[in-house]
This record gives sequence, structure tokens and C-alpha cells, in this order.
Amino acid sequence: MKALSFSAEAGALRPSAIRRFASIINDPQVISFAGGVPNPQTFPAEALSRAARRAILEHAPVALQYGPTAGLPELREQAARLCRARGIAAKPDGVLLTTGSQQALDLLARVLLDPGDVVIVENPAYVGALGAFRARRAEFLGVERNAQGLDVAHLESRVPALRRAGRNVRVLYTIPNFQNPSGWTIPGRGRDELLEAAGRLDLFVIEDDPYAEIYFDAAPPPPLAAMDDEGRVAHLGSFSKTLAAGLRCGFLAGPAELLAKLELAKQSADLCSSMLDQLILSIYLAENDYEAHVRTVRAFYARQKAVFLGELRRESPPSVEYSDPGGGLFSWGRLPEGLDAEDLLEKSLAEHKVAFVPGEAFFVGEVPAARRHFRLTFAKETPERLVEGARRLGRLFRRESS
Amino acid sequence: MKALSFSAEAGALRPSAIRRFASIINDPQVISFAGGVPNPQTFPAEALSRAARRAILEHAPVALQYGPTAGLPELREQAARLCRARGIAAKPDGVLLTTGSQQALDLLARVLLDPGDVVIVENPAYVGALGAFRARRAEFLGVERNAQGLDVAHLESRVPALRRAGRNVRVLYTIPNFQNPSGWTIPGRGRDELLEAAGRLDLFVIEDDPYAEIYFDAAPPPPLAAMDDEGRVAHLGSFSKTLAAGLRCGFLAGPAELLAKLELAKQSADLCSSMLDQLILSIYLAENDYEAHVRTVRAFYARQKAVFLGELRRESPPSVEYSDPGGGLFSWGRLPEGLDAEDLLEKSLAEHKVAFVPGEAFFVGEVPAARRHFRLTFAKETPERLVEGARRLGRLFRRESS
Repeated sequence: MKALSFSAEAGALRPSAIRRFASIINDPQVISFAGGVPNPQTFPAEALSRAARRAILEHAPVALQYGPTAGLPELREQAARLCRARGIAAKPDGVLLTTGSQQALDLLARVLLDPGDVVIVENPAYVGALGAFRARRAEFLGVERNAQGLDVAHLESRVPALRRAGRNVRVLYTIPNFQNPSGWTIPGRGRDELLEAAGRLDLFVIEDDPYAEIYFDAAPPPPLAAMDDEGRVAHLGSFSKTLAAGLRCGFLAGPAELLAKLELAKQSADLCSSMLDQLILSIYLAENDYEAHVRTVRAFYARQKAVFLGELRRESPPSVEYSDPGGGLFSWGRLPEGLDAEDLLEKSLAEHKVAFVPGEAFFVGEVPAARRHFRLTFAKETPERLVEGARRLGRLFRRESS
Repeated sequence: MKALSFSAEAGALRPSAIRRFASIINDPQVISFAGGVPNPQTFPAEALSRAARRAILEHAPVALQYGPTAGLPELREQAARLCRARGIAAKPDGVLLTTGSQQALDLLARVLLDPGDVVIVENPAYVGALGAFRARRAEFLGVERNAQGLDVAHLESRVPALRRAGRNVRVLYTIPNFQNPSGWTIPGRGRDELLEAAGRLDLFVIEDDPYAEIYFDAAPPPPLAAMDDEGRVAHLGSFSKTLAAGLRCGFLAGPAELLAKLELAKQSADLCSSMLDQLILSIYLAENDYEAHVRTVRAFYARQKAVFLGELRRESPPSVEYSDPGGGLFSWGRLPEGLDAEDLLEKSLAEHKVAFVPGEAFFVGEVPAARRHFRLTFAKETPERLVEGARRLGRLFRRESS
């Protein structure tokens, strides 16, 4: 009896290369630079608990009940205000609330992509987005970063060629600020160029911006969505890195026609996101100084980064390079020729109990140096363990590259 | 400039016929038998608030952080225990937690269905499931209920015929207990017959069971999943009708091979469900007498149903029929020939400020009497308004059918 047979889409599902490390990350013996998760110390638990109490006891018929698919109206308005603070002309009904930004990526993949479509992604790119696109059986065109931003010239030649070959190329995905995994940021001029190229090539841009608020020195340049006057950008924001990742609540600002489709897709995906989470966030935002809180989060990660990268650079041989991000949670490392990040991870775990994420899973297509890259997060460990882990890692790299 | 073009799947998305009534339902002037939502009075707000406080203040690194895609381990174990209490041999790792049961339907549709596949559904069927299947561009074979359960003979003739015509027919979807919209329950013998037919026809069964615990007199017969020894049933449960619908937390018990695929699909759908919601439910279940609470919920809806149906039957002409559900939230009405539920809804709203849901949207295919049906819920209104609304409705039906 063969009761179960799976869809073609199910066949395209692959476990995230990063999820493999979950058990390692959760081993308290291991100093972990691997997971991509924020530090729970930065979450305002007391204030969220007060908001939860009010949400449940004073607003039970809203907090505990099904709600509108597009999201709690008050929180849509607050999210629209956050978007406007980033320069995006968003109205409350131009904002959709989602079960985390990951759901926004998934819904976008559903309504924008057909199987076989080619999605343009930064190379390396965020694995969660690659996963959502792959689940739709999309393929990828990887674009490298350069000093100006993305390699637009490469786009201008490759996209028409792919289209001549009969491929659908309609969507470009980017994390312009403090990218996961690389930590890189597209400079202001590079954003202009990218949006101009998107116009010329008629591409729709998914701008995923979960780290916008977590900058260390200067605020990043305005988002692409702030410069878009053609309705070709969807801007994704999140509270996961500033308030709580476990409250699954992201927001998406975009053109009305797109939002209408996404809302329909969300209706069949989960009816609505957690109403309790939405109400907690809404009450929190109304009754607390969010901007002041975000300043403490910025200062926290800036300190973490300084401690970590300072020690790591002191301890590592000069042949190992690290990106110095202006914000976010990640630094991107590159080993000298002849070394392999996966091999070193095995040694690092076995001999030094230090974890990081090998870079290959973040790349699309054939990239010769892929296996020399790795991602490090400075988000989770205490300063003492950041220093201790950086020392162990530096020592390993010194030994291996000599 | 045409920046946006949509996928074929996006073209298959349709607004739920029921969501159209959202604005009517929320008009406090209107006595509403329309929405399909539980009564927030039944939610244990005080106890949930205590659980929320503990979740956030004592377990912030879990409640406020990303968590495992398959769900909080403790709650998986508690859900497995609930399944076992229903006679299903579920282990904790045989249970997946989802962002409400709707997400379970959506994930099942993704991993089981290809575009053009035929899904067997009860006729009428739950619109949220039809929506999730339609979003995958599935088509439907409707099966009517009869006194024994489902019309299995119809299945036995139609499924082979469809397969001979080259169609994929692999999945059967049912709400065996107190069905939405009809309130009907498949009797024990009918369940045996259905599962035997599923075996002969090699069908995979999605058993959606959100109302299992809300019975009025006798508990319903054991679920299909309890009788399944071939791994051909996925059993879906929910806390939405007993604890809180706004905490988006459903559970699915099924064969390991299916769960592995669903977990991958969920990873790209939303990474994980609200960890706070999961922890609140888990703490609530550990520290409260859930079974005692469910008994009060049962008594509440039994009273609501008795008040409502009693009055409605007294006031309605005998030519209008109503199902008398043994549990759940719904009664299914049928008008005499010549009357049309949508026409009557318009009159009912305009002249009597009473809302219900016309039945057509619940049917698949051409059903001659579809427009004579309508769904009524007795969940939401106070007893006074149940009586008043039943009187107005009965009066309207009397006038219209004379």
C-alpha cells in the first residue's frame, strides 16, 4: 500500500544547510558564532510582559480571537509610521503584517514566481530567502557585490541573455543593510544605480531590511523603497531583531496591487498571524520609547562586534579576512587559498568547541571560492566567550594556514 | 512600466466568500449568526495571562526567541498526549505544531498536491480548506453525506473513472466531527467504511478535527487516525476553539515521512510559529485542568445551541430545515424550493439586521440545491440576542415561504 506520494514542489524542498548546526548551537559547551539569532538580553521582557498582561486582560476579544488577515489595524498603522521614518511613503493600508519576515518571503515567492523562473540574488545571499524561492522551484542568477554595491553591469548583460533564452527573470532580492551573511551594505549611490537598472530591466525588487535599525555608527542610506516611484519595490521590516524574534511579526510595505494578492495568499496560508503577538507589539510601541530601546540594542551589538572582531583580528593570521559590518549581527570571513571552511569547522568543533557556519550554503551557482568563506555572528555569546572563542579560532587558523 | 506580474498560482487565489461578511459581522447593530469564530467568553483569559507572565519573565530566551520549526518540544509532547487521549498512537516526534490548523492545511496542500490534482471533499466542505487546495490549483470531487457517513459508493465509481481519464486523485479531506458548515458527524460505522474505501482506492486522508472536544452529549466516535494502521491519515487538531483562536497554534499527527516534508515546507513558510503562543499554551496545559475547562466550553455551546435551535424551530415554518449538531459551532439550514439564501440574506440584513452565511460557497461543482442552504453559528451572540435573532429570522422565513 503506497498511501503517500508527494508533489513536485515537495521534491524541491531541502533542509537548510544552517539548520544542520542547530544541535551544535544548543550545546552549552560550544562557543557558538553560528546561529543567526538575536541576543535575548536585548529583548525588553519586562515591558513586553506588561503589554501581554494588558493585551490579554483588557483586550481578550481581540488578543485571543481570530483577526484580520492583513493584520491588527493599530499595528499596521505603527508599522507604516516606522516605514515613513525610513523615508517610505507607506499608508496603513499599504502595509501587510506577516508571521515573521520569512512568511513575507514565502508569500512573495508564491504570488510572483512560477516554477523555473530565475530570481536575481546577491551572491552570497540569505539562505531563508533562497529556501522560500527554491520551494517554488525557482532558479537563481547570482550577482556579486563590489565597492559600489551590486555588480549592475553583470545584470545588464545577463538578464537580457536569459530572457532571450526564454527564461522569466522578474524579481531581484536584496538585503541592502548589513546583509546576512556578509555584513555588507549597499552604499547610497549603489542603491540609485540598482533601482535605475531595475527600471531599465523591468525587475521587481524585494528589499529585505531586518537590520535597518541596528547600525553601529551612521544610519544606513535610505532604503530602495524610499526612492521608488514606480511601485517596483516591496520593503520588508521586522521586530525580530529589536523586540523579540519569538513574537512572529514582520511587516511588508508595497504597491496596493501586490498587497491585495499577498493578503489572499496569506488567507490560505494561516488566516491571520498571532493576534496576541500583534497586540503585545502594538501596546508596547504605544506605551514605550521604542527609539530609546533601539538605541540600547545598537550600543549592545556595536560593543559585541568591537570586542569580537578586535580579538579575532589580533589572533588570526593576516591571510584570513573579515568584513567589518556597520551594523547587524554578522561578519563574513574568508580563508586563504587551500583552506576549506567545512574542514575547519570539523576541527574547530572537535578540538576547540567553537562553531561557525561554512559559507557554501549561501552561494548560488558555481563560485570557486565558496568553500573558503564562513559566517560569524557576534550576537549571542557573552563578551568573555566572544574573546575566548575568537582566540581559539584565531589559533586554529594560524596553525592551519602556516 | 509594468513592474509587477503575477504567478499562475496567484491567479488561482480568490477572496473567501465568507470574508465578504466580515464588515457585517463586526457591526454591533447586527445580530450575527455568520462568523465562524468561537465565543471569547469561553477563553480562560486570567489563566492565559498568568501563563503569559511566566512565559515572558521566566522563559524569555525561549518565549521571545526563534524556536524549532516543528514546535516547542514540551507542547509537541502535550499535543501528542491529547492525540493519544483520542486513541491515536502519536509520539511527540510524530506531531508537528503549526500556525493554526489553517497552516497545516496549506502545508499539506503544498507537499501533497500538484496543479490539476483532484481532491475529494465533503459537499459542502470547509471553505478554508477549499481555499488552501485551490491556491495549489487543485480541483474537486464532491462527495455527499448520507445517513451512514459519506457516500462511499460514489467514491468507488468516480475515483477509478477519474484516474482512467488521467487525473491524479490521491487526497480525501474530511471534518468528521460537527462539520463546518453542516454540523454533521460521520458515525462510527461510516468511519470504518470510509477508511476501508481509502485503503481500496489508495487515498491519503486529511482528518481535520477542530471540534473534537466540543461535543454536547456523547463524545464522537474515535477519529479515523485512531483506526489507521497504514499511515494514510493526517490528523489535525487545534486549541482555537477551546483556549484561544488568536494564539495561532494547531497540531498535526501523521506518518513520519509526511512530517519530515511538512517540517521542511514550514521552514520556508515561517521558520517557526509564535514561540510565545506555544509557551503560553504549554504552561497553561501544565498548570491548569484543561479537561475541566473543556467541560465548561462544552456546556456553554450546548446551552447556546439549545436556546438558539429551540427558538428558531418554533419560529420557522416547517419547510425550513435545520441540522441539529451533536457538537461544534454550526447548524446548517435548508430553505424550501423556490427560495434563495443570498436573496434572503439581503432582506434579512436590510429589514431585520440579522446575518448568516449563504451556503453556495461551501459547495464544489454544480449542486442544484446549493443556493437553498445557509450556515448559522450559535457561538457568538448572547442568549437574549440568539432568541431575538432566531425570532426575526423565523418571521422572515415564514413570510417568504408563504
